Amino acid sequence: MPVTDAAQQADFRRLWGDLDPIGRTSAGGYRRFAWTAEDALLREWFAGEVARLGLDLTTDRVGNQWAWWGDPDEALRAGTPGVVTGSHLDSVPEGGAFDGPLGVVSALLAVARLRAEGHQPSRPIGVVNFVDEEGARFGIACAGSRILTGALAPERALALSDAGGTTMAQALRAAGRDPHELGPDPATIARIGTFVELHVEQGRHLVDLDAPVGVGSHIWPHGRWRIDVPGTANHAGTTALDDRDDAMLGFAAGVIAARRAAQDHGCVATVGKVRATPNGVNAIPSAVTGWLDARGADEAAVQRVVADVTEVMADFDALVTEESWTPVTSFDHALVTRLATALDGIPVLGTGAGHDSGILANAGVPAAMLFVRNPTGVSHSPAEFAEEADCLSGVAALTRVLADLTGRSA
Amino acid sequence: MPVTDAAQQADFRRLWGDLDPIGRTSAGGYRRFAWTAEDALLREWFAGEVARLGLDLTTDRVGNQWAWWGDPDEALRAGTPGVVTGSHLDSVPEGGAFDGPLGVVSALLAVARLRAEGHQPSRPIGVVNFVDEEGARFGIACAGSRILTGALAPERALALSDAGGTTMAQALRAAGRDPHELGPDPATIARIGTFVELHVEQGRHLVDLDAPVGVGSHIWPHGRWRIDVPGTANHAGTTALDDRDDAMLGFAAGVIAARRAAQDHGCVATVGKVRATPNGVNAIPSAVTGWLDARGADEAAVQRVVADVTEVMADFDALVTEESWTPVTSFDHALVTRLATALDGIPVLGTGAGHDSGILANAGVPAAMLFVRNPTGVSHSPAEFAEEADCLSGVAALTRVLADLTGRSA
Repeated sequence: MPVTDAAQQADFRRLWGDLDPIGRTSAGGYRRFAWTAEDALLREWFAGEVARLGLDLTTDRVGNQWAWWGDPDEALRAGTPGVVTGSHLDSVPEGGAFDGPLGVVSALLAVARLRAEGHQPSRPIGVVNFVDEEGARFGIACAGSRILTGALAPERALALSDAGGTTMAQALRAAGRDPHELGPDPATIARIGTFVELHVEQGRHLVDLDAPVGVGSHIWPHGRWRIDVPGTANHAGTTALDDRDDAMLGFAAGVIAARRAAQDHGCVATVGKVRATPNGVNAIPSAVTGWLDARGADEAAVQRVVADVTEVMADFDALVTEESWTPVTSFDHALVTRLATALDGIPVLGTGAGHDSGILANAGVPAAMLFVRNPTGVSHSPAEFAEEADCLSGVAALTRVLADLTGRSA
Repeated sequence: MPVTDAAQQADFRRLWGDLDPIGRTSAGGYRRFAWTAEDALLREWFAGEVARLGLDLTTDRVGNQWAWWGDPDEALRAGTPGVVTGSHLDSVPEGGAFDGPLGVVSALLAVARLRAEGHQPSRPIGVVNFVDEEGARFGIACAGSRILTGALAPERALALSDAGGTTMAQALRAAGRDPHELGPDPATIARIGTFVELHVEQGRHLVDLDAPVGVGSHIWPHGRWRIDVPGTANHAGTTALDDRDDAMLGFAAGVIAARRAAQDHGCVATVGKVRATPNGVNAIPSAVTGWLDARGADEAAVQRVVADVTEVMADFDALVTEESWTPVTSFDHALVTRLATALDGIPVLGTGAGHDSGILANAGVPAAMLFVRNPTGVSHSPAEFAEEADCLSGVAALTRVLADLTGRSA
């Protein structure tokens, strides 16, 4: 039975409307952190929707949710492992509605359409909801896929703590999971023959290209560094300027150095997070820690940004420590070409944002992405947006891609 | 019965030892915020010690504790209101042991000595424990004395909230107090004929002067300003530098501008507290708020510092808002002279720190201070320190001052 555009629009609005109130903040953004009550609601919603579609739900050792149309293990034995699509449902603090959920909703709608239209996939189709993609709670992005693939050791993950001092181990237990279960899950990865993640674009390339949808070919090299500026606690009113060792001054110099270095080397650099100790109005800070996020098209250029910041920070006896580093991630060339071809030669573009698809690609899974146009380019903000028509174009593109990848002639 | 120096040293160590564990942090500092469980323990300790001395304890409308030797109301009717000494027991985050408690402990020891030695005061002697002097929890320093004297409106105080969102009204209720009670208390103020606060010096003037104790003559003009830097939330990895409106850059410029302006105008300026929104590593901050503390010997110079910072901040569309401003506070000239004379001409000095004694002075109470030498000048830090011998010299000085002010010849 063919699905009309009007019916698909109605389905899109229903799914979007059901998600809308979950984790909504008074400022109009979203706060959907891993293993919280909001996350539990999102996981229940996902389980309910895949049950409605008649898919089989499994959860891997990490807690990522996988819904299958067809038997992925039988297909694996037959040498035709499945085609998986999906994204994540968690958010940054005061995040937008689209980053993550658009990929999950689009996956569900594409599968629903293929099933309704009587498509007989040559390989199983999976829909995934990755847990903890943003790393907003425990500080490591793509934790769900990193642990899955072995890129993040479970012992290290379990010891991470959130702003309230709760460790991931405690959070897992509170969410009803056994922390000892956490670890790499090669059996789950083996089921993924191909991975395609649809995501709202975080940038304005598709606006410039006048295209509603594009194919993602690579992720810029990127990393996070912690800048620890030492100081000496003292009274703000009674300590002469010459007697001060004020950690905030070094921090401020670091912020400015990071921006200048990014300009000099054609990269982007951000200090978005800061923690001052003791953080009192009348106390000279004894320590200020900042986090530097740096990315660029060229690995060497990004490293030069960090080197410049490190040099400036040395004047303040501040340490710059790498917390994560991801080299350039190139998606599977043949897959990117196939997607672009199946979609009539739509634009192919890179991105400065990390994604679970990149983690899978680095683990050897043939992966690629679809991006949906973002009129302002704004992301990680309540103002993040995509036109409904573009979202539906994204669903249509993903449907064609899944049909192509699981077609009988394939 | 005369009190030997050895006995007084033993008493000092007992009192100090009993206070030591309360609110102690793993970093070796103290976290003693108003109306917390730690504060309740400190208030119980105070009540126990004044009961041991046989003093009568009352609590005013604000929650400040007053212990009296003699009947303050009878004395007031007789036109000879009491002599009060004391300080506070709360701390900044990771504060030191001396800022506040040294004044309370010294007051208790001085009164104990006078009572043991058979002193017959011509006027009542009071010992006070002011609540919430540091303002560490609700953001307004000297809240206990400000509300008492009417300098801070109770409605405004009750609506203040701590880092966890608890209002002062809720905190008072949780501590068993009725928020409706909070307000100015002129009857309590009327009982204070003279106020002398002993405090560890926050600076090194007494080191330079080679004196264990000095008399405080004035408090520098000082104020707090909030700097609100606006930005636009966006993704740290995908937003081109030219498309950014990063609030952290304006904040950094403000920190550097404050230091430069303080140097230019011979003042001190500190940005000790910062709050970034959303404070995520991969999110360009949509807002950063910093707090500027500025002080100096000269009022016009302090205002010039703030004007300079405001000018720089205007380039970032940032607002600089005064949260508090206290002009120079001169202690009672006759009282300062009398203290210095009674103590054989010890040094007289000003301070850059605010104190409850300054709030009382501004409310018309004849007030002055005694400072005890601080070998490093460090305060508001676990490293804050005073030699025991200097502390005992401070007790001896305070004892002589109280004896002088309540002597029969006086």
